[in-house]
Amino acid sequence: MIPRYSRPEMVAIWSAETKFRIWYEIEAHACDAQAALGVIPKASAEAVWKAKDVTFDVARIDEIEAVTKHDVIAFLTHLAEHIGAEEARFVHQGMTSSDVLDTTFNLQLVRATDLLLADMDRLLAALKVRALEHKDTVCIGRSHGIHAEPVTMGLKFARFYAELDRGRARLVAARAEIATGAISGAVGTFANIDPSVEEHVCAQLGLTPEPVSTQVIPRDRHAMYFATLGVIGSSIENIATEIRHMQRTEVLEVEEFFSKGQKGSSAMPHKRNPVLTENLTGLARLVRMAVVPAMENVTLWHERDISHSSVERNIGPDTTITLDFALARLTNVIEKLVIYPDNMLANMNKFRGLIHSQRVLLALTQKGVSRENAYTLVQRNAMKVWEQGLDFQTELLGDPEVRAALSEAEIAEKFDLGYHTKHVDTIFARVFGPA
Amino acid sequence: MIPRYSRPEMVAIWSAETKFRIWYEIEAHACDAQAALGVIPKASAEAVWKAKDVTFDVARIDEIEAVTKHDVIAFLTHLAEHIGAEEARFVHQGMTSSDVLDTTFNLQLVRATDLLLADMDRLLAALKVRALEHKDTVCIGRSHGIHAEPVTMGLKFARFYAELDRGRARLVAARAEIATGAISGAVGTFANIDPSVEEHVCAQLGLTPEPVSTQVIPRDRHAMYFATLGVIGSSIENIATEIRHMQRTEVLEVEEFFSKGQKGSSAMPHKRNPVLTENLTGLARLVRMAVVPAMENVTLWHERDISHSSVERNIGPDTTITLDFALARLTNVIEKLVIYPDNMLANMNKFRGLIHSQRVLLALTQKGVSRENAYTLVQRNAMKVWEQGLDFQTELLGDPEVRAALSEAEIAEKFDLGYHTKHVDTIFARVFGPA
Amino acid sequence: MIPRYSRPEMVAIWSAETKFRIWYEIEAHACDAQAALGVIPKASAEAVWKAKDVTFDVARIDEIEAVTKHDVIAFLTHLAEHIGAEEARFVHQGMTSSDVLDTTFNLQLVRATDLLLADMDRLLAALKVRALEHKDTVCIGRSHGIHAEPVTMGLKFARFYAELDRGRARLVAARAEIATGAISGAVGTFANIDPSVEEHVCAQLGLTPEPVSTQVIPRDRHAMYFATLGVIGSSIENIATEIRHMQRTEVLEVEEFFSKGQKGSSAMPHKRNPVLTENLTGLARLVRMAVVPAMENVTLWHERDISHSSVERNIGPDTTITLDFALARLTNVIEKLVIYPDNMLANMNKFRGLIHSQRVLLALTQKGVSRENAYTLVQRNAMKVWEQGLDFQTELLGDPEVRAALSEAEIAEKFDLGYHTKHVDTIFARVFGPA
Amino acid sequence: MIPRYSRPEMVAIWSAETKFRIWYEIEAHACDAQAALGVIPKASAEAVWKAKDVTFDVARIDEIEAVTKHDVIAFLTHLAEHIGAEEARFVHQGMTSSDVLDTTFNLQLVRATDLLLADMDRLLAALKVRALEHKDTVCIGRSHGIHAEPVTMGLKFARFYAELDRGRARLVAARAEIATGAISGAVGTFANIDPSVEEHVCAQLGLTPEPVSTQVIPRDRHAMYFATLGVIGSSIENIATEIRHMQRTEVLEVEEFFSKGQKGSSAMPHKRNPVLTENLTGLARLVRMAVVPAMENVTLWHERDISHSSVERNIGPDTTITLDFALARLTNVIEKLVIYPDNMLANMNKFRGLIHSQRVLLALTQKGVSRENAYTLVQRNAMKVWEQGLDFQTELLGDPEVRAALSEAEIAEKFDLGYHTKHVDTIFARVFGPA
Repeated sequence: MIPRYSRPEMVAIWSAETKFRIWYEIEAHACDAQAALGVIPKASAEAVWKAKDVTFDVARIDEIEAVTKHDVIAFLTHLAEHIGAEEARFVHQGMTSSDVLDTTFNLQLVRATDLLLADMDRLLAALKVRALEHKDTVCIGRSHGIHAEPVTMGLKFARFYAELDRGRARLVAARAEIATGAISGAVGTFANIDPSVEEHVCAQLGLTPEPVSTQVIPRDRHAMYFATLGVIGSSIENIATEIRHMQRTEVLEVEEFFSKGQKGSSAMPHKRNPVLTENLTGLARLVRMAVVPAMENVTLWHERDISHSSVERNIGPDTTITLDFALARLTNVIEKLVIYPDNMLANMNKFRGLIHSQRVLLALTQKGVSRENAYTLVQRNAMKVWEQGLDFQTELLGDPEVRAALSEAEIAEKFDLGYHTKHVDTIFARVFGPA
Repeated sequence: MIPRYSRPEMVAIWSAETKFRIWYEIEAHACDAQAALGVIPKASAEAVWKAKDVTFDVARIDEIEAVTKHDVIAFLTHLAEHIGAEEARFVHQGMTSSDVLDTTFNLQLVRATDLLLADMDRLLAALKVRALEHKDTVCIGRSHGIHAEPVTMGLKFARFYAELDRGRARLVAARAEIATGAISGAVGTFANIDPSVEEHVCAQLGLTPEPVSTQVIPRDRHAMYFATLGVIGSSIENIATEIRHMQRTEVLEVEEFFSKGQKGSSAMPHKRNPVLTENLTGLARLVRMAVVPAMENVTLWHERDISHSSVERNIGPDTTITLDFALARLTNVIEKLVIYPDNMLANMNKFRGLIHSQRVLLALTQKGVSRENAYTLVQRNAMKVWEQGLDFQTELLGDPEVRAALSEAEIAEKFDLGYHTKHVDTIFARVFGPA
Repeated sequence: MIPRYSRPEMVAIWSAETKFRIWYEIEAHACDAQAALGVIPKASAEAVWKAKDVTFDVARIDEIEAVTKHDVIAFLTHLAEHIGAEEARFVHQGMTSSDVLDTTFNLQLVRATDLLLADMDRLLAALKVRALEHKDTVCIGRSHGIHAEPVTMGLKFARFYAELDRGRARLVAARAEIATGAISGAVGTFANIDPSVEEHVCAQLGLTPEPVSTQVIPRDRHAMYFATLGVIGSSIENIATEIRHMQRTEVLEVEEFFSKGQKGSSAMPHKRNPVLTENLTGLARLVRMAVVPAMENVTLWHERDISHSSVERNIGPDTTITLDFALARLTNVIEKLVIYPDNMLANMNKFRGLIHSQRVLLALTQKGVSRENAYTLVQRNAMKVWEQGLDFQTELLGDPEVRAALSEAEIAEKFDLGYHTKHVDTIFARVFGPA
Repeated sequence: MIPRYSRPEMVAIWSAETKFRIWYEIEAHACDAQAALGVIPKASAEAVWKAKDVTFDVARIDEIEAVTKHDVIAFLTHLAEHIGAEEARFVHQGMTSSDVLDTTFNLQLVRATDLLLADMDRLLAALKVRALEHKDTVCIGRSHGIHAEPVTMGLKFARFYAELDRGRARLVAARAEIATGAISGAVGTFANIDPSVEEHVCAQLGLTPEPVSTQVIPRDRHAMYFATLGVIGSSIENIATEIRHMQRTEVLEVEEFFSKGQKGSSAMPHKRNPVLTENLTGLARLVRMAVVPAMENVTLWHERDISHSSVERNIGPDTTITLDFALARLTNVIEKLVIYPDNMLANMNKFRGLIHSQRVLLALTQKGVSRENAYTLVQRNAMKVWEQGLDFQTELLGDPEVRAALSEAEIAEKFDLGYHTKHVDTIFARVFGPA
């Protein structure tokens, strides 16, 4: 976790305080269920709630763990210091440490995901606003980095919206993957604890009982979860890269917002660098790097080994914190993005009409010229524009073979920008629903 | 693609013949839609279907491509050789190569996924059969590779079933991710082709129109797809590893089926190695290695670049072929797995009752011994069993402090295996539904 | 392996024919050494060489393997068909299959590496030629995609040369990593075969005996090998990306060579896309994807398991074939790269002198202006150029506070391009040695 | 960075205090060199050293950065607070931020590597001690998890020693990769700073001048560096996995040291779990997950973009801290590993002589039995041992066809363990040098 790429609300989910609080709630709810079954005294279960408003002392628990080398035992020992040894002896009965640890980890992931979903909602809202704002702002579409045919800036925002909207749906599915809990005992057989305890605890925490756990909740769930974050990270990189491209000196169709006090370079005061989106490109790599270890974690020996744990202590907090920060940063970039429609038009005209070549090609074909011949006709005029800096429309008008098929008006009509944007509303309706 | 790890039906999906067949169908359906719009002559559209029963000549197309250096143009040139240059000139009108390539790739992935789903159904069926067969076959549960408490072999199968059943559901979602097509032209604006063409072609092929494409279908879809395969691959590794563990000489609770002619080792004729599940462990790595490049593919420059293409030429076929093979191999392993219940019992008794330690611990606690004291009592007897080879029950019976809390009968009852399996039916009902 | 991204010499290294040839040579050399020790009859060892000119029948061996399910036994059975069962019974004595398989795999990797080294030599040569050719071709240096200060095209080539020269040195080290062989028997103890056999076979094949093998050669060697290829692949991506950037329409400082018959787009005949370097970007991902599975392969159970094998059957050929192709393709791109020095100059002047801002900043500081004030002075003029399209030198000349510190001549001198290239020879000497 | 998996010396290298200290030294040394060239006043250079004993105020620098949004400018502003604005105006002259940042990052990596090398020396020493101690402790060698032929525990340690000794050599090479510095200005041309400044600063810091930098030091170096750490991490996993296997209940040939107060399980007091080596397995994944992003970092746009930076802020500290911790933990595990030679012998005899099957096979062949027939003879006796629990030597003695070729004494000789260990000294001499 890198403080500069962290936001406090997400960091808090992963604090020791939050963790111990959840441990406490699991134990307390489990006692309630055990008492309802008559397994432990009702009074003892009630006594556990005496610690309801306690903020557990992380340093003290660490101190105990230094001796016991076992974190849950350390916590239970500390809990007994609050509720009394007599009542405390029924706490955790029939449970194994992983019942607490795994249910807690999943609950933290669920809460982290709820923040991420809210992040995505803000980002989607920002993208929609900018999409509608620039629905008809024409700019050149590029394939292979080379001018192709016109699109609009709104279409770019709309496709990023659609991509992240898919991401949001995937995240909802990923949340369901890890919204389970398990209170099933040493090897998952409920030998020492009734399944109804698991049901009660899960219901209280907003989780679903894991259908079949061993000592642990199966890690294919977490693999799917982190894979989903990796895909969302990759979409962030996709959007960030588009902005970086559009901001480069020769293109300059957009710029990240540049605040007053900001210095772009210690050496070159004129520079305005797309540092936020470059940063997002790197953050995407950090989000993505959790995917493979999360998949390697799926294989545990027999009913469990603990190899997954150190991995999750890292990727649990780091990946959700980084993605939360990245989504918020990208939202900020999108909301404040400075857009230069004039530069977009200027760039589009850089090659004097060449972007309309396909329309001419089609027109020739429709007039009965064979595809092969039409291609040759268009290409020979295109090459003159490309190599000699001439104007495409002028060249076509002066080419007798072209003119044999197309009139001056017919040629001119092929250079109309509106031709390219006529279905923008259709596409917007697909993405955002009917206007 | 490694022939020894391939099955013909999946390989066929990725053949040049299949690819050109799909290209043809896309072009032919697009012509129908164009003709319906009046954009091209109905007769020309009908003429395209003259090639309906043609098997396209891959070598000839390659030959043309060597000159044009463009695969779709090469195909169209060859198609014209079949239907005549006159009629052929309307084929592909208003479309761009990627309309064909991307829609084809997705259709191949959809078909591959249908095979994978059928594979998973067979594997799930096999797991269910074995789970029911061994529902009550008791064996020791192990955490950290160390004996813990009893489980049943059926529970192992049941949890693998549950894990792969989640995998199947994920695969259904992944199929929906990539079941889209696009016929939207050079930069996705439908400038030269009406959206209704896309709708018609997609409907004919069982695909959904991509809401907003550029030149290409967005690659976050494919990232999610391959990530899903990676998770399924990881689950295969999980199951394979369990079998490898259970087959090791000292454990020998299961064995892969060993056919008559088979030789385990050129040097050691007695060896029966779990080579199939070891192989599956490696195949899982191959499936998983596609995940990161698929995520790197999400970022394309502007309306597209072609960096993703070489990656997909590899991972499209290789990953689906490998996973198909792995699922089939695992099904075979599960169906024929030789299970040794006697060895399971023998292993369980290896430490003379120690696996029942927790029950004794709980019993002591319930009789009013403090948790700390109970732990000490159990551990000191456990250590004698561990270090001196004594019998746990005998030691407990001879420990006055234990006996002060527990009678002989109460101690004996703690060594009953049935105690551990009493909720197996509950768990089976969760996984397979009510019996 | 994708045929279109393969070259025959590298493919041949990985053919079944080559593999069986190497198996044969290992067995024959081992027989020589065994005969020299008196372990097997000299006549039998000599008899093995009767097959010296045989091309082994791959189909026949496959047929036998279908029965034995063991590839080395299948080969030995077939070898006996050539040299006679009587003599054949001494072949492979004391050896285990992995002695043959692992030594063969390493020898194939060594040969593949020799091709890769030759590829890199050609690429380095091409880069050096272009570096020297364009040592003084000035173009703008860019950080964050934004104009910074002038560099030369030669410097770009020189740094790619230096990067790949490091890659070459790494590849030499990687070759040494995997240039070992092992003939050490079932678990590496030489129980049934004298270490001198290993020494003889390795010496004949140009390999070093593995100091301590188990049944297999340790896989940390291969992890390091494939990691090295991954780094070289990443350097290829780095160079490819630079070219893609420089070819984009608005920059157009270089172009991949565009041959006569080539068609850039089925729809837009004017397009010249950097498809080779885009392709290289994808191929780099394919090379890199072998790194993680090769690292996962390091962990084998006890004296070996076979999980690594399926991974290596894939990444052994695929990664070396892809990298070989990529290096050759990049060499071709570099050799034929079309460079537009005029466009470089035009781009450099796009912001009317702003790139010289730092020099002015320094000059002000040296004249006693505080760093803070100098920064403010430069930035306020820079912002006018940026926002109002004015000329930087003109603005500076007209700013009284600037002129209080700098004369007209002093200002003019700051706009000299030669200032930026004065150390190019120094850098070239560092990279290529003294001229 | 996870505190529980961190050691203070490595953490200190990555503290803000250390970072600013190195920044300071770079600036001060650069001033010296600039003064020597006469570019700045000698007195100003000397004045910088007034801050020689200052511990820079991290909070204050962060405060300034919150305004400037540029870390190096913030530091320089703070430095001026210590040495006076007048003298401070010559600091950083001609340099760009990355000159400081990149040189610092590499110096931190160099120092981190020196700690890692010391860690590896301790680990190697521990492995050597245990290898010599157990050179002749015989245990069964296993392939595929199945008993093969005898090895010794010392051989296991020796091969881990050899593997990590290779790792150490790779780490030395990796250190050389990143032991470079660059003071070359905005785009690496030395336009505003003489190359001798770079030479002086690097010499003072123990670095080599980067032959050709842009704004940054090329990232192929760091890719190679982190790839090397990934391979070492994989070797740690390899060793950890061996120990986990050997500790499992049914094998129990080794155990991690189990201290007095330690509790293996909150539920099962008898458990002694290999939690340290399981943890190492997870830590290896964390080390390895840096490899791919480090490779993705190689591609920077033109003369640099800043996408690599956020990645390195994470993997720089996290990966070196984790690996440092893992090496130390593994050293501790090796030093204290409890080894049970009696259990090794008991396990070896589990299958009543079957592990000697190959020796019998060879003996039969040498007596003139054809390979095929010998195989059949051995296998039929082996199968009786396997399936009916008989003794291999007894069965062979009672098989007339075997006895036709081998005498009783000849058969007995095949069951001598010393036969398998006769070359252990040879192998040790290869690994550790002549005794």
